Amino acid sequence: MALVVQKYGGSSVADASCIKRVAQRIVATKKAGNDVVVIVSAMGDTTDELLDLAEQVSPLPPGRELDMLLTSGERISMALLAMAIANLGHEARSFTGSQAGVITDSTHGKARIIDVTPGRIREAVDQGHIAIVAGFQGVSQDTKDITTLGRGGSDTTAVALAAALEADVCEIYTDVDGIFTADPRIVPVARKIPRISYDEMMEMAACGAKILHLRCVEYARRFNLPIHVRSSFSTREGTWVVSDPYTEGTEMEQPIISGVAHDRSEAKITVVGVPDKVGEAASIFKTLADAEINIDMIVQNVSAAATGRTDISFTLPTADSQMALTALKKIQGRIGYESLLFDDQIGKVSLIGAGMRSHPGVTATFFAALADAGVNIEMISTSEIRISVIVEQDGVDAAVAAAHRAFDLDADQVEAVVYGGSGR
Amino acid sequence: MALVVQKYGGSSVADASCIKRVAQRIVATKKAGNDVVVIVSAMGDTTDELLDLAEQVSPLPPGRELDMLLTSGERISMALLAMAIANLGHEARSFTGSQAGVITDSTHGKARIIDVTPGRIREAVDQGHIAIVAGFQGVSQDTKDITTLGRGGSDTTAVALAAALEADVCEIYTDVDGIFTADPRIVPVARKIPRISYDEMMEMAACGAKILHLRCVEYARRFNLPIHVRSSFSTREGTWVVSDPYTEGTEMEQPIISGVAHDRSEAKITVVGVPDKVGEAASIFKTLADAEINIDMIVQNVSAAATGRTDISFTLPTADSQMALTALKKIQGRIGYESLLFDDQIGKVSLIGAGMRSHPGVTATFFAALADAGVNIEMISTSEIRISVIVEQDGVDAAVAAAHRAFDLDADQVEAVVYGGSGR
Repeated sequence: MALVVQKYGGSSVADASCIKRVAQRIVATKKAGNDVVVIVSAMGDTTDELLDLAEQVSPLPPGRELDMLLTSGERISMALLAMAIANLGHEARSFTGSQAGVITDSTHGKARIIDVTPGRIREAVDQGHIAIVAGFQGVSQDTKDITTLGRGGSDTTAVALAAALEADVCEIYTDVDGIFTADPRIVPVARKIPRISYDEMMEMAACGAKILHLRCVEYARRFNLPIHVRSSFSTREGTWVVSDPYTEGTEMEQPIISGVAHDRSEAKITVVGVPDKVGEAASIFKTLADAEINIDMIVQNVSAAATGRTDISFTLPTADSQMALTALKKIQGRIGYESLLFDDQIGKVSLIGAGMRSHPGVTATFFAALADAGVNIEMISTSEIRISVIVEQDGVDAAVAAAHRAFDLDADQVEAVVYGGSGR
Repeated sequence: MALVVQKYGGSSVADASCIKRVAQRIVATKKAGNDVVVIVSAMGDTTDELLDLAEQVSPLPPGRELDMLLTSGERISMALLAMAIANLGHEARSFTGSQAGVITDSTHGKARIIDVTPGRIREAVDQGHIAIVAGFQGVSQDTKDITTLGRGGSDTTAVALAAALEADVCEIYTDVDGIFTADPRIVPVARKIPRISYDEMMEMAACGAKILHLRCVEYARRFNLPIHVRSSFSTREGTWVVSDPYTEGTEMEQPIISGVAHDRSEAKITVVGVPDKVGEAASIFKTLADAEINIDMIVQNVSAAATGRTDISFTLPTADSQMALTALKKIQGRIGYESLLFDDQIGKVSLIGAGMRSHPGVTATFFAALADAGVNIEMISTSEIRISVIVEQDGVDAAVAAAHRAFDLDADQVEAVVYGGSGR
């Protein structure tokens, strides 16, 4: 008998009929002879509605109370899901994050899981019950206060609980069929990736693929827990995220490139005319780090000999750019740079593939494809299994399509089924 | 420094602006030099909306899951209230029933409090914080599952927590100015009762006065905890419920009658032609007890010598009458009664007053007043401090008004301010 952990997101439980459909799928998994533990997010727009209420009573609500408020969302969805399962004749028990033993630090709003003690979940499963657990939430070790895990929190709950329970698989249900070689809205002939490594998936997530959050993949890799990303609207196999997708015995040949990711959420800041002295760049990035701004790519021009000055460009989440500009302006006098340039009309296009380790020439092919498509490269950054470029935002679609084609990723026909959008 | 426990019902926290107003009142109490613990119900219609959702996924949801669902309502209101208080510059901490140490039995939907261990509340108060506690909910001692306390649950939470914290007073905020000598919608010249005894208040609650639930008054009496029932829409003194309202030093003279209560929620069943043998009545009421039906008043006619049969009438909550009729029909063959009569067009009118102990003639005055008002008495029941009669439902208003007048309870002018109704 296998232990299957399933996670359903907010769009999968958006209303009563969605919840009933999910209940049927869970019961089917149980009937197939598995033990089942389910992690569930808040219904559809619940979190936004609660945030709206909070805003009405306080412009800057305390984190502890905001977490107390928001965690009611999963409480509602999990209780309803347990009821719907009971209505199908199976025993279900819902558990809050605290009851499920999700122990976190005390950082309200983006707490980190520091331990998982799923005694009650184990007990429920041993009694033959289906356990339903609230995603996104935990309880702080020190203060015993309710915490939330922040973005990607429910996926992380699912993976953490699956690891602690030594589950056979963690199934992440979403509204698409799995992970695709590119966003099917941009590349209609993108293909579903049947198996992908944790490392590649982490690069994909970091580069804008929204299906899985980086943090949850990191967690799964640490415990070598297989993740199966699949659609809650079909029974097709989705994408397996595993440690080594190309072991002997599988018939797949390792592709050079696994997928093309893109991200339009970053902006670029250029600090113009920085005196080319030791420590000036460090001072700039220390200022940004102190403001808790995450920097992505960095490029420093070669210093112009005539002026003894250089330009430093970096990218960051567009949402943080106002804060970054303010912080940088404060140190202009001390650093003595000339000016700041800001550009939020950029996009990042990334090639990800473990196969590029053993295939030279990937960069050349990539850049040639972009040139042919008429897309100019503004910045470049690479890792062992990834090449990312910053291009102007209007060129992102063309760049993604060109790269996808250049590495023979195009399918013969459209196979992507995307359910995202309105109505659920 | 006094410790004040305040309880706000759903209509007092129905929306963001209500919550902000309540927050101001709480902060004012704190600023006046008191420690403050607040018990709060779910916002306005939240509970009904959640019940509606439950109904959509399951016609008969498991009690454990229904409690998990419904308790999210207080979680929302208490977190918002804590935020609103924080926004006024004071520290507030919200706590679930479980966190507040409200320990109950495992009877989901109508759990009984078996212990209160308010360590975290005490700690928060000692740190100078305002503690906000979810009403209506607790955690079961055996299974550590979330429970709800059923009707009047938030009031009971408030009184239980106030008793455990040895609070100086438990203030129950509602949408009227206090307890009145009669329902001001029926008797516009009803007067606010400044002080009333636990015993009288319990009789009032049992006889249809809706402001306080019987259970919470019982609890307060056991711990001799003063309850102050008052309006959340004014700063006027309301009604104090205490052990002895007429002690020396107060200027009030004990009235004969404290108030007139009425109740339209009961129905009457008559079992016609019951063989007048030992044990037949017992058998009937055992059947009803087994079906968990609460009987209120009982009348048995004198047996007609000619037939050796008698009629037994009793009243019960109208909501239970279908179940009662079904249970009784099942034993018709065994008991051998002739038929059942059912009447849900009745009402109960009760006079309550500790003063009637020392004043003979109350019954005579009451019945004369009803006769003058043209109201016929169908059944009678009495206690040491109460006389109740069953009348036809259309006669309830006239009976209440007539009794109120007969015992000189009418005020010179209208003083009742009733805010009940729509819009909040």
